[in-house]
Amino acid sequence: MYELGVVHRDVTRASRDDVTALAGLGVSTVHEAMGRTGLMRPYIRPVYYGAAFCGTAVTVLLQPGDNWMLHVAVEQLEPGDVLVAACTTECEDGFFGELLATSARAKGSIGLVIDGGCRDVAALEKMDFPVFSRAVNAKGTVKATLGSVNIPIVCANALIRPGDVIVADADGVVVVPAERAAEVAEAGRSRKANEEDKQRRFAAGELGLDMYGMREPLAKAGLRYIGGEQEQDA
Amino acid sequence: MYELGVVHRDVTRASRDDVTALAGLGVSTVHEAMGRTGLMRPYIRPVYYGAAFCGTAVTVLLQPGDNWMLHVAVEQLEPGDVLVAACTTECEDGFFGELLATSARAKGSIGLVIDGGCRDVAALEKMDFPVFSRAVNAKGTVKATLGSVNIPIVCANALIRPGDVIVADADGVVVVPAERAAEVAEAGRSRKANEEDKQRRFAAGELGLDMYGMREPLAKAGLRYIGGEQEQDA
Amino acid sequence: MYELGVVHRDVTRASRDDVTALAGLGVSTVHEAMGRTGLMRPYIRPVYYGAAFCGTAVTVLLQPGDNWMLHVAVEQLEPGDVLVAACTTECEDGFFGELLATSARAKGSIGLVIDGGCRDVAALEKMDFPVFSRAVNAKGTVKATLGSVNIPIVCANALIRPGDVIVADADGVVVVPAERAAEVAEAGRSRKANEEDKQRRFAAGELGLDMYGMREPLAKAGLRYIGGEQEQDA
Amino acid sequence: MYELGVVHRDVTRASRDDVTALAGLGVSTVHEAMGRTGLMRPYIRPVYYGAAFCGTAVTVLLQPGDNWMLHVAVEQLEPGDVLVAACTTECEDGFFGELLATSARAKGSIGLVIDGGCRDVAALEKMDFPVFSRAVNAKGTVKATLGSVNIPIVCANALIRPGDVIVADADGVVVVPAERAAEVAEAGRSRKANEEDKQRRFAAGELGLDMYGMREPLAKAGLRYIGGEQEQDA
Amino acid sequence: MYELGVVHRDVTRASRDDVTALAGLGVSTVHEAMGRTGLMRPYIRPVYYGAAFCGTAVTVLLQPGDNWMLHVAVEQLEPGDVLVAACTTECEDGFFGELLATSARAKGSIGLVIDGGCRDVAALEKMDFPVFSRAVNAKGTVKATLGSVNIPIVCANALIRPGDVIVADADGVVVVPAERAAEVAEAGRSRKANEEDKQRRFAAGELGLDMYGMREPLAKAGLRYIGGEQEQDA
Amino acid sequence: MYELGVVHRDVTRASRDDVTALAGLGVSTVHEAMGRTGLMRPYIRPVYYGAAFCGTAVTVLLQPGDNWMLHVAVEQLEPGDVLVAACTTECEDGFFGELLATSARAKGSIGLVIDGGCRDVAALEKMDFPVFSRAVNAKGTVKATLGSVNIPIVCANALIRPGDVIVADADGVVVVPAERAAEVAEAGRSRKANEEDKQRRFAAGELGLDMYGMREPLAKAGLRYIGGEQEQDA
Repeated sequence: MYELGVVHRDVTRASRDDVTALAGLGVSTVHEAMGRTGLMRPYIRPVYYGAAFCGTAVTVLLQPGDNWMLHVAVEQLEPGDVLVAACTTECEDGFFGELLATSARAKGSIGLVIDGGCRDVAALEKMDFPVFSRAVNAKGTVKATLGSVNIPIVCANALIRPGDVIVADADGVVVVPAERAAEVAEAGRSRKANEEDKQRRFAAGELGLDMYGMREPLAKAGLRYIGGEQEQDA
Repeated sequence: MYELGVVHRDVTRASRDDVTALAGLGVSTVHEAMGRTGLMRPYIRPVYYGAAFCGTAVTVLLQPGDNWMLHVAVEQLEPGDVLVAACTTECEDGFFGELLATSARAKGSIGLVIDGGCRDVAALEKMDFPVFSRAVNAKGTVKATLGSVNIPIVCANALIRPGDVIVADADGVVVVPAERAAEVAEAGRSRKANEEDKQRRFAAGELGLDMYGMREPLAKAGLRYIGGEQEQDA
Repeated sequence: MYELGVVHRDVTRASRDDVTALAGLGVSTVHEAMGRTGLMRPYIRPVYYGAAFCGTAVTVLLQPGDNWMLHVAVEQLEPGDVLVAACTTECEDGFFGELLATSARAKGSIGLVIDGGCRDVAALEKMDFPVFSRAVNAKGTVKATLGSVNIPIVCANALIRPGDVIVADADGVVVVPAERAAEVAEAGRSRKANEEDKQRRFAAGELGLDMYGMREPLAKAGLRYIGGEQEQDA
Repeated sequence: MYELGVVHRDVTRASRDDVTALAGLGVSTVHEAMGRTGLMRPYIRPVYYGAAFCGTAVTVLLQPGDNWMLHVAVEQLEPGDVLVAACTTECEDGFFGELLATSARAKGSIGLVIDGGCRDVAALEKMDFPVFSRAVNAKGTVKATLGSVNIPIVCANALIRPGDVIVADADGVVVVPAERAAEVAEAGRSRKANEEDKQRRFAAGELGLDMYGMREPLAKAGLRYIGGEQEQDA
Repeated sequence: MYELGVVHRDVTRASRDDVTALAGLGVSTVHEAMGRTGLMRPYIRPVYYGAAFCGTAVTVLLQPGDNWMLHVAVEQLEPGDVLVAACTTECEDGFFGELLATSARAKGSIGLVIDGGCRDVAALEKMDFPVFSRAVNAKGTVKATLGSVNIPIVCANALIRPGDVIVADADGVVVVPAERAAEVAEAGRSRKANEEDKQRRFAAGELGLDMYGMREPLAKAGLRYIGGEQEQDA
Repeated sequence: MYELGVVHRDVTRASRDDVTALAGLGVSTVHEAMGRTGLMRPYIRPVYYGAAFCGTAVTVLLQPGDNWMLHVAVEQLEPGDVLVAACTTECEDGFFGELLATSARAKGSIGLVIDGGCRDVAALEKMDFPVFSRAVNAKGTVKATLGSVNIPIVCANALIRPGDVIVADADGVVVVPAERAAEVAEAGRSRKANEEDKQRRFAAGELGLDMYGMREPLAKAGLRYIGGEQEQDA
């Protein structure tokens, strides 16, 4: 039950250090470090190749076919923020384009996630303002009905509160609660170090079956090998 | 109710000057200049990065799994024309590929929009023949059942009559009626000039809230600001 | 009715010569050479621009949200093999990423087709390990439930048996039964030579209507031309 | 390119006799009588079991999330009319419910087709006001932006002009141009009589292969029979 | 970021009186009374005709293809509760069927909402245990990986906390926060009374244009009437 | 790689006894008895409420928009057979309706599964000829291109060979290989008896946690209970 017609000005943003730490990890690693949770639905895709960002959320609740609240939200942006826009219903109209991107960038914003449509994508790529959206759509919007800014929203099936960290890259978008950012960054760093070691071992030909000690549990689960030099259990 | 089994040879095409004017504006601006109408559904996407065109329509009505009428349509093409192909039902087969593109180009055609599938997309990119389609699909088609050429068709939920202007770029596809092309081009030019001015002001930090005079209507609509230095209405 | 919990070690792969021959033809030509059959559904798309391969299938049947069997399958890979992974249900989780790609490549594998999700796509592109999937998704998976390796599977609505040839490029994915590979390669070569000739003639302005002798059958089917210099039947 | 902000009051409706004739034929027969054209996309479905109607169209162009124009349209309804509502974009909000149905019925309207959402479906069934829509959705709408009434619209990929006949039943929705209604009704009646005869013959065990004289064309096309008492061509 | 592997036993349920009050209003009215928010996505549909309920939520977070936590959740059910099940990813497997329904009913539960699949739907209808799901699917599930019970979840894009009121009927599913239940029920009752009055007036032929005083704002917005006795503005 | 243009007349059908045994079990039970495999995709749905059947497959491979081979297939039907129709591509046209149903029934057929569209659904319900399809669609088809009859096909992602048993009910469609029918029926009967016992125990209030001995594995997996009389591990 969304609170409508309000703009919250006081946002507790995740610390700059934690944002920087998370930025170096990437979406898949951050998501793993959160116990495999926090992802938006995979229909949210970058509007141009190479789009990526990591920043703190200013949230926006839009009404269908109406981008009024995006203009309201831009005023609330601080350097390093990303806009995260949900809609009260499913709508793929082009709520956002070059002009709003220019305005958002002037305030220091570094990107947008929108559970809706986006347009002017060639211009956005040229100015390198990364957008993740559910559609590319030229359809213009009106400015007639109130939504809200900086309330907790559900965007592409993920809960986002103002100030949360949003990591977006070619693998999708993940949300880290502001108060868990340090802990997740730490877990992500460990995981990443661990993966780099595994990477070397895999490249050298070691098998996951051996690295992860899977042969015994597979045999216990009943896996049977047929053919080859001799038949055997896993 | 489509007229079937006919090829209309007499097409009143939009004037070359109007096509040139529209070509410089892009899909989103043209669509705005038309009162936010005229767009095809956003599932129509370019088959390669950077595909774009602006030309006059030769329309084709296809039958499912059958590309016979595309060969018939190619003969009707004149320089600057684009093929616009609908189907009597939803079908994502690969109706069009490198050979038809070569043939269409030999007649002076500059692109294709198809509410169906397209194949040979690597070759199309190499020869830079822009195609906008609902799917990439290798599935071949037969030549067995009549459709029509140069009748009014509905393609991706938009009405297209032969000779209409089709503008296609990364934002999608928009249709301008031939007899409105001059008027839309003029409205688009005004809008574009206006947007360039806004662009500069946004880049300089001016807010949409001020530029569009939104603060008063937002307050009237009941927007409330919470927190910040002091609470206040919009 | 899948055989579960088994790994078949003995695979009769298509001959290296036939794979090489098919590799030079591309998906659309191979599919035509097979009488327009053998395609996977077009929702299977490359995860990066330019991804393509042609190799012999090691098949994997996965359980939803579980990539255990991919590790089992990697051990069965031989140089030139591709992994082909289906799931017992529709699931777009990120079953495969950089680590598994590194491991598969160490065994000589040249790519993956998966009727599921894939992650680490930027890394996959960097290492140029081509993947064709139904989704890009960071969602991680568990290792808890048995599927099978090297059984006949249905993947994206196509039947694949271990050792079959899988051709994948920008147009999609096609499956050639191992025992038909030579015959299909031969038919594809003929078709390709034939198409190169047609290509030249189309480029020179010859129409499909004439090249394929379509005017008479079109007239017989009742096609009517309206307007132009004089009205006439097809 | 839709004309926006207008209400056309003068509508040339198909004659009552033609509507009555078409009502007795059903969607599939009418569609066949039109050369297999005129259908809306099959995603338009009845909101309750048994919903069906045949009437003349009052068309409405809606804006996303906004049902203002439905109220404007109701005033234009005459007995036997059906509302046909398209939207300037894809939107599944609940534009229509029990109150509008009550108002439309008070004017003599007999149903609605909407390329959008509908709510109060239990009440609509109880009052037996048939609605065909793309979604059932409780989402309410605003009244803020103009569309139009009684302009030609594209609804679910079909072109509808005010006064056209709309036939809707369990098989979907078909549109008959007002000026072709008599001719289509006549063709439909012939077809129906013909089908009743076929029905009897099929029930008696006659095969389509014989009834339609298919054996020879099948053999000519190369159909081969394998097995049975003796192998033979078709 | 979900808390995984936990079962919260202490749930503050909405009061029985508020649940009863909301039950009499229906989904569309409750949703309007909440300012047009609180709906789940419309892809959640009843698995049989007439399914409906209103109760307090016991929430479940599932893993793909795994219904272990539903068994854990059943123990936490109290009379009047409904199960609300989300999954960490999109999965349409048949997580729930006749046996779990029997077990849930034995604990006093009155229904299920699941952002996943459901099976045994004929049996569920026979025992009249209402289920709202995204799919009907016979696919069985394993019991291998932990999720959680009675944590806040996002289900079909709506946020649900344990104890919230869930209203489900033919129009969809809406979520009322436990602490707002009384206020929403009161607003819903007013709205309903108001609608009954409107219903009578609409039935008597009064138009929405007059009842809502729309003629002046429509004219101000520029609506033009064309034709009829005389042309005029709105 | 489908064999095209052939009709196989010799079909080894599953035994009548096994079909009868499977008919009594239902789709979900049969699917479980097959190790949770054998299901078609859940987008295949009954076209009317209560549709269900269990019979032996006569398979048909269709071309898009073309139902010629259904007429060929009808001749091959024997009492107790069901038609199972796939298409060489995705196509939702209305390949099948009342006339073909009448003809199929005259040959003793008891139903149809089609990975395509179906029409005349009101008539099919009236004559109680059960059809499971991916769409209801009035769109008519031509008779121009060969497919095949009684070859192995992939339909809705499941492999079907002629003579296999097809079980269809409200939960979906499952395929039992003819040579495994007896074994699956036996496994299904055991499972069903077992489920009836569980059903009684669940109805009496026994929990799945206890019935399946889940408490220990849940605790081992780390499940924590929070709140209630006292916190404890699972």
